[in-house]
Parts: sequence; C-alpha cells; structure tokens
Amino acid sequence: MAEAEIPEDHPRHDSLVTRHRIEAGVEKGITSRQGLIAQGRGEAFDYLLGERTLPSADAAARAAAAHLLLADHPVVSVNGNAAALVPGELVALADAVGADLEVNLFNRTEERMRAIVDHLLDHGASEVKGLAADARLPNLTHERAKVDADGIADADVVLVPLEDGDRAAALADLGKAEIVIDLNPMSRSVQVADVPIVDNILRAIPNITAHAHELAHAERAELERIVGAFDAAATLDDAERAIRDGDLS
Amino acid sequence: MAEAEIPEDHPRHDSLVTRHRIEAGVEKGITSRQGLIAQGRGEAFDYLLGERTLPSADAAARAAAAHLLLADHPVVSVNGNAAALVPGELVALADAVGADLEVNLFNRTEERMRAIVDHLLDHGASEVKGLAADARLPNLTHERAKVDADGIADADVVLVPLEDGDRAAALADLGKAEIVIDLNPMSRSVQVADVPIVDNILRAIPNITAHAHELAHAERAELERIVGAFDAAATLDDAERAIRDGDLS
Repeated sequence: MAEAEIPEDHPRHDSLVTRHRIEAGVEKGITSRQGLIAQGRGEAFDYLLGERTLPSADAAARAAAAHLLLADHPVVSVNGNAAALVPGELVALADAVGADLEVNLFNRTEERMRAIVDHLLDHGASEVKGLAADARLPNLTHERAKVDADGIADADVVLVPLEDGDRAAALADLGKAEIVIDLNPMSRSVQVADVPIVDNILRAIPNITAHAHELAHAERAELERIVGAFDAAATLDDAERAIRDGDLS
Repeated sequence: MAEAEIPEDHPRHDSLVTRHRIEAGVEKGITSRQGLIAQGRGEAFDYLLGERTLPSADAAARAAAAHLLLADHPVVSVNGNAAALVPGELVALADAVGADLEVNLFNRTEERMRAIVDHLLDHGASEVKGLAADARLPNLTHERAKVDADGIADADVVLVPLEDGDRAAALADLGKAEIVIDLNPMSRSVQVADVPIVDNILRAIPNITAHAHELAHAERAELERIVGAFDAAATLDDAERAIRDGDLS
C-alpha cells in the first residue's frame, strides 16, 4: 500500500504511515537494524500512552518552539529514524524557526550519511549539514563524536529527536539548550534535556512547527516567559503517570 | 563481540546476549524486519517489568511444564525470533517434555523456513517439522494457515512463543491447550492463551525446562492439580500491575 492510499480517518492511520515510512527507510539504506529495534520500543511506549499527545507534551512542544525562536543558532539534528519518519516535517520545522538541519548518526557510515542528506534534499531542504564533520563532541568515541564546526558545534539550541543517551549527555555537557523527543520518559536522553518531549515524532515535529508559526510574531519577553515557565521534571512525571495509569485493556 | 565474550555477571548480560543473537539472526536470514520491530516492543515491556521473572510468570512456567508433560502430543511452535533468540533452549525443552518442534512463520517464505529448520538442527534438534505444510488452520489466509498434519494439526498442547494474535486465536479455536510467551500482558495472543507467560523468552524457555525436569517423575494427579490451580486471568492482572507499579526511575 502506498502512503497516499492510507485513508486520513483510518483508526490506525499514524501507525500505518509509520510502518510504511520505516520500511521505505530500510529500502533506501536510511534505517538501520538498531533503528528498527528502536522503532519497536517506541511503538510499545506509544501504545501505553494511548497514541495521543499529552497536554504536558503539547506544552513541551510550545516551549521547544519558543527556545528555537529565541536561539541565535538553532540546529535540528537528524538521525536515520527521524529522516525516515518525518523528512518533510523536519524541513518545514527548520524553515519555520530558521534552523540548520544536520545529519548525525550513532552508527555513522558515509553511505548512510549520504542517503539521509539526499533524502532530506528530496523533501525540500535547501542545505543539509553533517558531511563536513570538522568538529568533535567531548567524551564520545571517534565516529559518534563527529559534528560540523558551523553546525551543532556552533549551535546554542539543538533539537535531537530520538537521540541516544550518551550523545544527549555530551550535548548537554556543552551547555547548549537541548530539546529531546523520545517516547520513553525514563530514557537518559529525556532526563538530560532542557525540554523533554515525550511524544511520537510523527505528532511532535508538526506540533512544534504549528506552535512556532503561532509564536512567530510574539515579543521576545513572551517567548522568554514560556521558556521560563516550562518544568522539565513535571513533564516527565506526567508522562510516567500516563503510562502507569493509562487504559491497558 | 562474540557471545562467549559477554561476562556472565555483566549487569546487562541478557540484553547483550539478546542483541547479539538477533543480529546473528538477521545475518542468517532468520529474523525479519517485522521481527526486529517486535524485538524492540519486547525490550520496552521487559524494561517496564524490571527485566525479571515475576513470581506469577514462574508459576505460569510451572503450569506450562505440567501441561506439556500431561500432553499426548505436545508441539513447540518456532518462529524467526524464537529461533534466533533461544535455539538450543527450545531443543532442550522439546527433549525434556517429548515435544515436536515445528517451524511456523507469520511471513512464510521457503528460504526462511529452511534457514530456521537448519538453525535448529545445528543446535541439536533431531527432527524439525513445518516444511510439509500438509494441513491448514481455520480462519487464516493461505500462507499463515500452513501447518504439518502430523505436527501442530495433531497436537493437543501447543507452546507458541511470540505468536501473533490471529494465529494464537486460530489455535485456541481448535480446542488445543495453548501456552503463549509474550512480554505484553495486553496482547491478544496472551489473552487467548490457556497458559500466558508474560516474560522474556530468554528467561521463560529455560525456566519451563527446569520445571519439567523437576516434575519429570511427578504423579499424573499432581500434574493435573498444578494445571487446575493455574489462573490465567490473575497471571495477566499481576503482570499488568507490575508494569503499572514498577520502579520506573
């Protein structure tokens, strides 16, 4: 079934689109084996959350939009699963907040880097960073540490969807404001984030973009108020409670 | 890292062994893409369970052993992930209870069937059924309905680790006693099982075998008492409670 053939009102629409895009990602050499396993973990947590965006996750998406709009140099980091699942949505978000897109892989190979850059260009990106790899993150082994000097290394705000814990911690150590999207509220990546968004990336990225459009003409003081009022720990507690108390039958 | 190099006392031993065997399963054409995603879903539920065997899951494993020992013709059904994760353990269980091993795939191809049969033979199985495919389960599409006439079609007790819901329901409809291993206590496969075991297959299969050895010389009345005392609904409730109340921090 082609993605366009999945009816918008199908009760399992998001799940079918997700499965379709991940399969296509494997065909294109974008999604790795580890990415397929990570996708399964995400499915389980989304199932427990009721496959919905919690109000607390929506508030986090709004805080993320304010962070990105306030930034001097925001960068959206893209890994294999993010590129496979929401390529056009990532391009739209980068456009909405004036962010760079940079490909960053846990298992970096030149073939996958190139495939993901091309995939984002096919989905409307005008420029994609990550191939230069002329700077390094501290406290990580060689391949996983590679970033662009004029990209993530220079950023003050970084959005890292579906990042692994070590990389998320290394970015946090650099003092950059970090926005993490992850469906597991206990993962180390959301624990170290300034703005943890516990939501499916298929819902979260368009949601941040919608908030960014709405806040495009907001005063700086208003954006700072939104950022200041956001409570990361309360957001994670709420997501954990939703998983515990959700309707499991 | 070869599996033999993973130290027994490593805090993530089971997780590392699992990852290693799944990767090897992909190399051998045993594990499918859907299998990798299913593995990830299992990881998330095992994480929520605390990666331990609940006392209720241990009681279920004991009831499963009693069922298999009482059976006239027990069959252990094997799919791709089960074969990749616990090939030797499945052979040991079949030996302990005098069961047939039969390969049954959701996405059946002759190549994968053959690869899995060979993998089980490599791990000490003397005979593996599933290639004859000369009988059909009711209410399933053609490929998914295929079973052996002198295997699952003839069995009175079937152990189906990691089975999908439709297949589990079709087996239950035939009036066979069904033992299902699945980490999701809300999945349809455990809901239709006579004996649902909510546990990691890496822990559950050796555990059933250990109970079978212990019960090998038990009186028939004692085995029947164990089977009769087992409460499937209470077992599922307990696993659900463990997920809700587990230490998530």
